[in-house]
Amino acid sequence: MATIPPPQALLRPLAVPQRLLLGPGPSNVPPRILAAGGQQLLGHMHPEMLQVMDEIKAGIQYAFQTRNRLTLAVSGTGHCAMEAALLNLLERGDTVLVAINGIWGQRAADIAGRLGAEVRELLKPPGEYFTLRDIQEGLARHKPSVLFITHGESSTGVLQPLEGLGELCHRHGCLLLVDAVASLGGAPILMDQQEIDVLYSGSQKVLSAPPGSAPISFSERAREKMLRRKTKPQSFYLDMGCLANYWGCDDKPRMYHHTAPINSFLSLREGLAMLAEMGLESSWERHRANCTLLCQGLRELGLELFVKEEAARLPTITTVRVPEGYAWQEITAFLMNKHSLEIAGGLGPSVGKVLRIGLMGYNSTKDNVDRVLGALRDALQRCRRSRL
Amino acid sequence: MATIPPPQALLRPLAVPQRLLLGPGPSNVPPRILAAGGQQLLGHMHPEMLQVMDEIKAGIQYAFQTRNRLTLAVSGTGHCAMEAALLNLLERGDTVLVAINGIWGQRAADIAGRLGAEVRELLKPPGEYFTLRDIQEGLARHKPSVLFITHGESSTGVLQPLEGLGELCHRHGCLLLVDAVASLGGAPILMDQQEIDVLYSGSQKVLSAPPGSAPISFSERAREKMLRRKTKPQSFYLDMGCLANYWGCDDKPRMYHHTAPINSFLSLREGLAMLAEMGLESSWERHRANCTLLCQGLRELGLELFVKEEAARLPTITTVRVPEGYAWQEITAFLMNKHSLEIAGGLGPSVGKVLRIGLMGYNSTKDNVDRVLGALRDALQRCRRSRL
Repeated sequence: MATIPPPQALLRPLAVPQRLLLGPGPSNVPPRILAAGGQQLLGHMHPEMLQVMDEIKAGIQYAFQTRNRLTLAVSGTGHCAMEAALLNLLERGDTVLVAINGIWGQRAADIAGRLGAEVRELLKPPGEYFTLRDIQEGLARHKPSVLFITHGESSTGVLQPLEGLGELCHRHGCLLLVDAVASLGGAPILMDQQEIDVLYSGSQKVLSAPPGSAPISFSERAREKMLRRKTKPQSFYLDMGCLANYWGCDDKPRMYHHTAPINSFLSLREGLAMLAEMGLESSWERHRANCTLLCQGLRELGLELFVKEEAARLPTITTVRVPEGYAWQEITAFLMNKHSLEIAGGLGPSVGKVLRIGLMGYNSTKDNVDRVLGALRDALQRCRRSRL
Repeated sequence: MATIPPPQALLRPLAVPQRLLLGPGPSNVPPRILAAGGQQLLGHMHPEMLQVMDEIKAGIQYAFQTRNRLTLAVSGTGHCAMEAALLNLLERGDTVLVAINGIWGQRAADIAGRLGAEVRELLKPPGEYFTLRDIQEGLARHKPSVLFITHGESSTGVLQPLEGLGELCHRHGCLLLVDAVASLGGAPILMDQQEIDVLYSGSQKVLSAPPGSAPISFSERAREKMLRRKTKPQSFYLDMGCLANYWGCDDKPRMYHHTAPINSFLSLREGLAMLAEMGLESSWERHRANCTLLCQGLRELGLELFVKEEAARLPTITTVRVPEGYAWQEITAFLMNKHSLEIAGGLGPSVGKVLRIGLMGYNSTKDNVDRVLGALRDALQRCRRSRL
């Protein structure tokens, strides 16, 4: 009865080349985490799996530095967690203030608009961050119920200071929603102390697990806003009430919600375990130290860092201006073809302006700093174009 | 600065027990697919990864028997594909008719309601299927723009006949949306010949890959309805316009959309490759034959099949009535504890009524039929309760 034949390309064996992934993610995954993800499956409701989920929850609470009970991993990538955060917090007509200094704010504004929220934007040029005064003016002017801000702006390499932000938002009756996809584990973030109401990240950055699951946590304030909703969230897959139950975050018996990505959860568990073994402070220090080495080396190559202020540089992803007389695509292609090494160009507002180098988790090592600097030195010699 | 200590449970090694998964999914994953998912990562925009995605697309076109260009895998589990289908097809105020004879129709109705659609329900008792006349009456009465129906009702074990359904829907100006999560590869489904407009499945059933990605395809009619939308879909993560571009289904250069679950895609590629190697007809026949053997054996044990009509039995998941004098939880617990073998109880409307036995993909073998029958024989001897 079938008439469309099997495709020839699928009848050839899968071949995956080895690359050193020093772009903005995904990063290379250590053998221990690959092994965890390559284990035989369990059912999504088996007691051993529920135990793994409890361990993931405890690992996220540690990584986020929170005691929030409503803490879990979303069954999707970091983007999916961004949607989960916005769609559970916002109802149609709610006002949300989105701090935009790169692609993630743009993305959040787009999603919030799709959900029917009233979106107000607070703008800064790419490469800059928001001061408390910027935020205060925005809160006073727009009176939002939620502020969205990006801790690690991976498109520009900016680290947003968080001190005082939660307190400021709460004085204005606003919840603080923070995107920490690119920064978690690479720079200090203390959810409870900093009064962050919703925090999410991804599995594939500092946690060094494959993409496919995403840690998220909600404060009691955020939980109360969700409990007061008049309408159901527009998604069942990401409905935090259902997910809270499946993850054992309420007092009810855990019930089937959806078939979870078991192997992604096994990998995430290992990524969180490796972070717990190393310790958060050591992880922060490791990323800071390797980033500093990288920045020194880049300057010695004559490259100009995109983020001027040292304290505002994201330790996981470093941005440099595309050097004059070069085409960024030629540099990234040269590194990939000649050195099997990935670095990236810009994204969104930074396209054409910067090169992005990621040193995250398993990949944040002195050896990788040396490798990428050596490869860049080679590229700068080989890819130079005749000046205009 | 961190004050919450690393959790002790995460400092112990991960231990995953071996189970034979003969429930409604996930199933056991063959070593070849586990190996594919355990490979080192590639970037989500690397040419080799785009090639894998092209191969996945061709594999789905073969498995679905479609030439639809808009064919891809969603970055989430089967549930996520259900949401992707509904949220891209429906706008607020659209009328959708949902055929409900088990949990999946209930779920689709819930999701469509969250999206603001006008939901009309067509009901049948669990264990029954819809005739063309049932559908025709529903279409004439409710004049929906979309009909949702489940091909393989995994909560009841019913296989819905699809012949003539597409043509009927199109005569009424309605699109046909079919859930084939539990049936794809196990029973014939011919998307183009049967005029199905949207079809989706999951990775973790007959395709024998881990959960975490989900094949989906849209007909030209469905694509046109999406192009006529007045509002953006409520999700960016699942916006089919963006996904179509990322998957190379339009004529524009492929652009970054989200970080895809790379390893899930590598596994899915292998699952589709194994189906292509075996051939669809052989896969259908294998599932039919093993299901027939299982049904014979179950009857010989004195068990009563839940779906009376042989042609209406889903070849991948077989339902039997919980035998009188037994508690279903004791049977499933006995099989897990004494035989390391999973079968499941009912779900949604079939809870307490049935036991569900899955024989899917890699797990659909004569040896597994013998193992589950032997284990059930043992359970029937050991778990009998005193009759009331």
